[in-house]
Amino acid sequence: MASKNLLLLAGDGIGPEAMAEVKKLIAAMNDKLGSDFVTDEGLVGGCAYDAHGAAISDADMAKAMAADAVLFGAVGGPKWDAVPYEVRPEAGLLRLRKDMELFANLRPAICYPALAASSSLKQEVVEGLDILIVRELTGGVYFGEPKQIVDLGNGQKRGIDTQVYDTFEIERISGVAFELARTRKNHVTSMEKRNVMKSGVLWNEVVTQTHKARYADVKLDHMLADAGGMQLVRWPKQFDVIVTDNLFGDMLSDIAAMLTGSIGMLPSASLGAPDAKTKKRKALYEPVHGSAPDISGKGIANPIAMIASFAMCLRYSFGMVAEADKLEAAIAAVLDDGLRTKDILSEGMTEVGTVQMGDAIIAKF
Amino acid sequence: MASKNLLLLAGDGIGPEAMAEVKKLIAAMNDKLGSDFVTDEGLVGGCAYDAHGAAISDADMAKAMAADAVLFGAVGGPKWDAVPYEVRPEAGLLRLRKDMELFANLRPAICYPALAASSSLKQEVVEGLDILIVRELTGGVYFGEPKQIVDLGNGQKRGIDTQVYDTFEIERISGVAFELARTRKNHVTSMEKRNVMKSGVLWNEVVTQTHKARYADVKLDHMLADAGGMQLVRWPKQFDVIVTDNLFGDMLSDIAAMLTGSIGMLPSASLGAPDAKTKKRKALYEPVHGSAPDISGKGIANPIAMIASFAMCLRYSFGMVAEADKLEAAIAAVLDDGLRTKDILSEGMTEVGTVQMGDAIIAKF
Ligand SMILES: CC(C)[C@H](C(=O)O)[C@@H](O)C(=O)O
Ligand SMILES: CC(C)[C@H](C(=O)O)[C@@H](O)C(=O)O
Repeated sequence: MASKNLLLLAGDGIGPEAMAEVKKLIAAMNDKLGSDFVTDEGLVGGCAYDAHGAAISDADMAKAMAADAVLFGAVGGPKWDAVPYEVRPEAGLLRLRKDMELFANLRPAICYPALAASSSLKQEVVEGLDILIVRELTGGVYFGEPKQIVDLGNGQKRGIDTQVYDTFEIERISGVAFELARTRKNHVTSMEKRNVMKSGVLWNEVVTQTHKARYADVKLDHMLADAGGMQLVRWPKQFDVIVTDNLFGDMLSDIAAMLTGSIGMLPSASLGAPDAKTKKRKALYEPVHGSAPDISGKGIANPIAMIASFAMCLRYSFGMVAEADKLEAAIAAVLDDGLRTKDILSEGMTEVGTVQMGDAIIAKF
Repeated sequence: MASKNLLLLAGDGIGPEAMAEVKKLIAAMNDKLGSDFVTDEGLVGGCAYDAHGAAISDADMAKAMAADAVLFGAVGGPKWDAVPYEVRPEAGLLRLRKDMELFANLRPAICYPALAASSSLKQEVVEGLDILIVRELTGGVYFGEPKQIVDLGNGQKRGIDTQVYDTFEIERISGVAFELARTRKNHVTSMEKRNVMKSGVLWNEVVTQTHKARYADVKLDHMLADAGGMQLVRWPKQFDVIVTDNLFGDMLSDIAAMLTGSIGMLPSASLGAPDAKTKKRKALYEPVHGSAPDISGKGIANPIAMIASFAMCLRYSFGMVAEADKLEAAIAAVLDDGLRTKDILSEGMTEVGTVQMGDAIIAKF
């Protein structure tokens, strides 16, 4: 069997620190379990801009296209706040998503039992929470054209973005949501603003049709996205799988992540369609948190979201389900032991740095 | 002095029940305080569709344009789920906002002390919460063109919405936010997605310029809207005034409302620009909650948001600040007395219906 090719794009801020822990883990798996990961590295975000004047170079993009999976850290920081829009750090991530056609973004919002008390929500509201947000990632207002600022004269400018969804895009993302629901509690909630947006009307229609034609066994609810946001805060356990568009997914998944009290803990997977011949999906795995420039370089960043993203990689890109389960169990075990990075510290727990946290998880694995 | 002309548009669902309590209050003010309110009524939403085939008739629209202020209940319900998009219940509200040019939507998210325990958030996170969300209401993706569904053939359709903001729109809404901040804690947080949207880039630029030119004494922060949603859930008391666009405002204000545990309690004001001559602003006041068809007609709806909306009307349309303060104090007093409608009921409190709640507030006023 061919080796497993990973491209590591650590990015900016705490990205490299978190990625370093995954590198150690990969080395340990190759050494001790005889895994056959081959890693390469590249630049994305502000560091790529500094090196090449672009948020990702064509050479690194080519590596990403060729890899079996991409592990992505985080991008951005105040250093690059004033760079031109086209080469801002986020442009690297958006190009990866678009060129690799990673239309399905899976964002689990799980409340680790050891952390239930650290949420801003009441413990009974979040304890045992296990939601999966399936966010459309290559369409909508992120990529629709026209997207521009027009000078109207007289000191007036006009900023324009375009929200566009085609039937096939809604069909394929809802298919992913229904399939995943079948492996969970068999319940999908679709969120849009059909009372205001035509793309929402189409979204609702296509999800309903897809459900009827192919997934009638799954329970389907529709909710307006604003009401959905409220319900997430009120009683999140009512949800199993939520499927929504790119922009609503951005907002709602961040809110869901925050509910768990564990934003530094949550991974995500961005998947393409299975290749017609090989059945393999292009894939990128990244923490939900950002580059956290305020704490970068201090050795205190929480590497768990990055490590959990690698667990998703094992599961979805390499079918290494047993290893993924084991890695997730190792994370939970370390938390049960009371180890905490600063962001999740609470009374009576043991504060550790990034490296110690990584080491402890690897030791339990 | 001319009498004060109010148009009451109770709408659907619990709208009429809640509005009935405001009518009693207005009658009591005319009777006992010698106020000079003159009320007229009209139809909006599903009931208007049933009567005229439109979500608001031209005649009622004309009344709204002529009134000193409009009190609006709520619209929509399953009965009208299948009516054509152009005449759906929400179209009535959107037409009122657009034709009256109500660009500034003020949504206070206040946590009533008596209800702090009923939030899904921890008491210490929400106790004393007092945020004002200033949402742009006549622009953005709600009204931008093209807004349509195109048939592409081959079973494919394309849904399109357009997010558009011009400099002057951002300038005037941020002006409102800065002015209001000066009457509060002097702190504005502007939220957009400038890392993804060109309208967000322009939003950020114009808010920054407006601040520099006219409101440099106010503290201004910028936050990405997704991060803003997270921060609202994590530690909402960091905010004073939040200014944001129509769609982000829709989501964020609903989330902020839910934080307080008091969605049935929260009012809103939608204001136009002051008239060049009379200085009067067109205005519409409405509860943040919806038409709640599931509980309508049962006499259990919470009328507080509607009554609090009338308090905002007294304050912003008629400069009746003392009366507004008194009405808000009456609401708080009734809650302190332990009276609760079903939606906010907790142990040891006295459950009352819509009418009893209205009566109790009027009695304290
Ligand atoms: C960094 C940014 C472009 C990105 C997005 O808006 O999608 C981020 O917020 C995310 O959710 O992955
Ligand atoms: C009813 C609907 C059109 C409306 C909106 O989306 O603006 C509502 O959600 C609101 O926030 O007032």
